Amino acid sequence: LLEVLQPGDVIGFTFFTGYMSMFAASVFFFMERGEVDGKWRTSLLISGLITMIAAVHYFYMRGVWLETKTSPTEFRYIDWTLTVPLMCVEFYLLIKPYGGKSSTLWKLIGYSVFMLVTGYIGEAIDPSNTIIWGAVSTLGYLGIIYEATLGDVKKTADASPNPEVAKAVKLLRNFVLIGWGIYPIGYMAMPGGLLGGMGLNLDLVYNIGDAINKIGFGLVVYGAAVASTKHES
Amino acid sequence: LLEVLQPGDVIGFTFFTGYMSMFAASVFFFMERGEVDGKWRTSLLISGLITMIAAVHYFYMRGVWLETKTSPTEFRYIDWTLTVPLMCVEFYLLIKPYGGKSSTLWKLIGYSVFMLVTGYIGEAIDPSNTIIWGAVSTLGYLGIIYEATLGDVKKTADASPNPEVAKAVKLLRNFVLIGWGIYPIGYMAMPGGLLGGMGLNLDLVYNIGDAINKIGFGLVVYGAAVASTKHES
Ligand SMILES: CC1=C(/C=C/C(C)=C/C=C/C(C)=C/C=O)C(C)(C)CCC1
Ligand SMILES: CC1=C(/C=C/C(C)=C/C=C/C(C)=C/C=O)C(C)(C)CCC1
Repeated sequence: LLEVLQPGDVIGFTFFTGYMSMFAASVFFFMERGEVDGKWRTSLLISGLITMIAAVHYFYMRGVWLETKTSPTEFRYIDWTLTVPLMCVEFYLLIKPYGGKSSTLWKLIGYSVFMLVTGYIGEAIDPSNTIIWGAVSTLGYLGIIYEATLGDVKKTADASPNPEVAKAVKLLRNFVLIGWGIYPIGYMAMPGGLLGGMGLNLDLVYNIGDAINKIGFGLVVYGAAVASTKHES
Repeated sequence: LLEVLQPGDVIGFTFFTGYMSMFAASVFFFMERGEVDGKWRTSLLISGLITMIAAVHYFYMRGVWLETKTSPTEFRYIDWTLTVPLMCVEFYLLIKPYGGKSSTLWKLIGYSVFMLVTGYIGEAIDPSNTIIWGAVSTLGYLGIIYEATLGDVKKTADASPNPEVAKAVKLLRNFVLIGWGIYPIGYMAMPGGLLGGMGLNLDLVYNIGDAINKIGFGLVVYGAAVASTKHES
């Protein structure tokens, strides 16, 4: 009986909507995959994997939350460790047909791992230095922003003859810049963090961020795939 | 053993039929998707997602009902928060090929969210003012009706050269006007509501409404897709 969602438990509510919307989004990406041009199918598959991995983690996180009313930090970071690199793969798959290099992918993944490992240390292992770890983690985040805004990702996309690709890369960059910027806000809302007194809840903020970013990222790629399939047929 | 459906538990009965019919409807929409013209496949997919999301929520709602014999308000609203915007997407997908604008979709979603958030407050957070919140929520509902009856949705559908689209939009509008009108009746049946003394049960009414609306909406879209696929081949 403990596992029942209580009235007014807004955070539990968002764990549930996260779980359901990620699940529905996966079915969507997997089924629509057959409708787009062959060269876009891997991208749609990755979109679906990102939300599917998230759906399973949200199922577990929801359980932890309902049973203990504490933040499921471990599951959160397990999820990110898998999904953030897959989001880097989405960038890579977009630019690969136009000369995107695998070294660019590894750079993005390197920055992400750095960002997540140091973020996890600040959240779970050394919380008394949470502000320092957050600042260190932000360096990794800035690295990803740099690559997508000025670096290799951007340059290759701009050089591509397919305007849909340049558009999609720009939209994804905006997700990284604005959508991903939601996470540090949640992190700073931890007790002892820079926004600790604001009454925000870390999980609430992270859940909103995930819904926007994981599903939104996938939809951008889907939109580019559909538009580009139409142009070419 | 608490979790067993008791003889005479009519409300529990409808939670089960809801769960099963939504599940079956999803399989139907997903499988028939391959039979219709390419441009209708996304619509059928959304029809299936609506009933699939509902099936999972009915599974949980059924459990809460059997264990506690109380209304699973949270799950109900989580379900609506996801499925009502998807129903707005159905309208949008119908009119999009004929110049439907994404701003129209956002208007519909805005009205829905307003309707659901204020409805949830009246049901779960501030039940002593349930009548006021119900009236406020109705404004959002009226907004949707307006868009579908006189506003952009209707205008674009009427201007389309495909008579199946105009017909489908009109049928969906009737669902919104009549089918969706079932929900406020359930809401008013709450103790303290305008129909509080009538012996109606909120969950019974909502369950009936959901079966009609979710499956019916999907079938309208399915019918339009099949008819329009025939015309064109
Ligand atoms: C900058 C920064 C952070 C950034 C986290 C980000 C950007 C996470 C992105 C997750 C995504 C996109 C998941 C979706 O699948 C942390 C670790 C909170 C620690 C504080 C500083
Ligand atoms: C007007 C009104 C309401 C309307 C609810 C509606 C119209 C819900 C529709 C749900 C659907 C269509 C679900 C199917 O997937 C509330 C919130 C009960 C509160 C009282 C006033």
